[in-house]
Amino acid sequence: MPSRMHAEIAEQPEALRRTFAALLPRMGELEALAAGTRQVLFIARGSSDNAAVYGQYLCSARAGRLATLAAPSLATAYHATLDLRGVLAVAISQSGATEEIVTTLAWARACGARTVAITNVPGSPLADAADLTLLTQAGPEQAVPATKTYTTQLAAVAVLTTALGRASGGGPGPSGSAGRGADREGGGHREGGGGPAGDDRPGRGRADLESEVEALELVPEAVAGMLELAPAVERLAERLVEVETLVVSGRGFAYSTALEVALKLKETCYLTAVGLSYADLVHGPIAIVDAGTPALLVAAADGPMLPDMTALARQIAGTGADVYGIGGDPGFAAACRATLPGPSLPEHLAPFALIVPGQLLAEALARAKGIDPDAPRGLRKVTQTGS
Amino acid sequence: MPSRMHAEIAEQPEALRRTFAALLPRMGELEALAAGTRQVLFIARGSSDNAAVYGQYLCSARAGRLATLAAPSLATAYHATLDLRGVLAVAISQSGATEEIVTTLAWARACGARTVAITNVPGSPLADAADLTLLTQAGPEQAVPATKTYTTQLAAVAVLTTALGRASGGGPGPSGSAGRGADREGGGHREGGGGPAGDDRPGRGRADLESEVEALELVPEAVAGMLELAPAVERLAERLVEVETLVVSGRGFAYSTALEVALKLKETCYLTAVGLSYADLVHGPIAIVDAGTPALLVAAADGPMLPDMTALARQIAGTGADVYGIGGDPGFAAACRATLPGPSLPEHLAPFALIVPGQLLAEALARAKGIDPDAPRGLRKVTQTGS
Repeated sequence: MPSRMHAEIAEQPEALRRTFAALLPRMGELEALAAGTRQVLFIARGSSDNAAVYGQYLCSARAGRLATLAAPSLATAYHATLDLRGVLAVAISQSGATEEIVTTLAWARACGARTVAITNVPGSPLADAADLTLLTQAGPEQAVPATKTYTTQLAAVAVLTTALGRASGGGPGPSGSAGRGADREGGGHREGGGGPAGDDRPGRGRADLESEVEALELVPEAVAGMLELAPAVERLAERLVEVETLVVSGRGFAYSTALEVALKLKETCYLTAVGLSYADLVHGPIAIVDAGTPALLVAAADGPMLPDMTALARQIAGTGADVYGIGGDPGFAAACRATLPGPSLPEHLAPFALIVPGQLLAEALARAKGIDPDAPRGLRKVTQTGS
Repeated sequence: MPSRMHAEIAEQPEALRRTFAALLPRMGELEALAAGTRQVLFIARGSSDNAAVYGQYLCSARAGRLATLAAPSLATAYHATLDLRGVLAVAISQSGATEEIVTTLAWARACGARTVAITNVPGSPLADAADLTLLTQAGPEQAVPATKTYTTQLAAVAVLTTALGRASGGGPGPSGSAGRGADREGGGHREGGGGPAGDDRPGRGRADLESEVEALELVPEAVAGMLELAPAVERLAERLVEVETLVVSGRGFAYSTALEVALKLKETCYLTAVGLSYADLVHGPIAIVDAGTPALLVAAADGPMLPDMTALARQIAGTGADVYGIGGDPGFAAACRATLPGPSLPEHLAPFALIVPGQLLAEALARAKGIDPDAPRGLRKVTQTGS
């Protein structure tokens, strides 16, 4: 019997279409809320935290905003009092009910931040705690491992980033302090030389709004294309069925995907899957990759990271370890023992589709190992982290 | 023959004394540089990144500054143009020669940040790129795994935090924009009700400067006490010699220690050691802990995290998995199969000493596995990440 997890993976194109349709019209509200803020602080755990890592790269590279991740326990356990004026705090939680995320967002608001909730559950405590809620349209998710709620979180993050790219970073802040962002006016176009860095880098930053929205609208179709990989995924799952530990790595935008693939494999298949950035991998722990510990590398089809990822695949193969790939180009595929091809999306949107083979692999590998992918042990749908 | 790594672990009390003696007198300079900044952005990789995670907690909980971690590839590969005025960018690199860290600090400066380098090598490129350099006094480190350079980085971070706690967060920014931190004046005492949150939390925040400095001066002796654990560590290493995968976890301040213990075991013993926060562990991947995959939990002897860590130890033991502990109190020790006792330092300084049993364990386990701890495969002293 097909699992619910498989069915929910297959629902992603529709869930994404619904989510973009619901959230793109809200960019004006987001822009108004973000006016006067200078940076984004994401608050999340688990799969949602991996969506936040994607948001960190997307906001910084595409909207010119510093974006970083909060450590929730600073709010929940240490009760740090920070000055968060000028900060747009964005909490991400599928259920909207994870207490530490709700508490941390409320704390950020009390510290002066403007607040956004990204959740799949209307009327959830997280939605109540935020100035503005972006409701993902995944529909109910019944399998315990998050799939369609994850990709629709990416959609919400992408809409938010598009709005931020359009928003002026300046204007008076919420506390009336002087704006710093006069150089940010101009409707989302990067003005080389106008920024504080004073340098004139090529315009790989913010594309104009219209083309950005058009690019987003191509995402659901690209995700649908990935579903056709299911037979190839089954074959890869058969190869990996005896593997106990696996290193998953990616760089740049695909780093978030590598983390999420590793998390899915850990949760669903009880595999010791280590998600590492390319840099952290070559900075030391590459020693753990060997004949018994294969690597799974995730790469977009273009962008500045691809040459390094291809070289890494060759390097790992050279040690005698098995290297498998998701995405990349023909050169990357040639360096890997087997590859699940990726989408033809631009690098910054590729994570929407690159995760799909990873989800399919976790589902297939769970079945191959005799695990029910819908209800792996040790996982609950809403996790409370504790007092 | 004793390894160099072991000798360097044992040098840490002296290295810390030298480092505090060299850096504590520089707090005035740090305070001046930090005037007008509102937050800290750490830039680091590998062990230095784990020191940065410690800094994230320390700066936020003890100095009331938002502190987060940068993603270097946003600078080096995506050339993001951000507005980093009001940001104190702190790059940490033992060698001061890791190109991506140097490039990212220079980028932060060009984006408007004030910049600090924490490095062990005077005249290194990183030192040249910074407004101010905090030179750790570890002396030359010859074993490849970082030990004394890591703990002296913690010392530099602690001195920086103490200076930030003393510094006013307000005053005109570098660009002349209005200060936001009038509520921060007052010499490092938390003024409940004066902050933007307007709430009056108990004074677990910034102790006054003098007692903070006195507390730092107790650290080297506490680290020296940990060296006496060597025989107990040898026994634990014998128990772990057949283990291939291990989950290392900690929460709050000790989270950074868990990450560093995991990294040491990965680098030095080729163990698949997964470093996870408590929250991320209970949010899903706890499924990977089982009879064949023990857990190693790191906890301070006090603080808000200890009850949860003790409960986690019991929970994992209840699944039939082996749980080992570093630190904690008698209740924590009772929940673990075996524990290496920790220091009697307060929670926020415990990471200086909690890492020592982890370092000793990595060294002993490497020898037990027939690996030269001074020169494990796949590791170099200065790693260049990029293209």
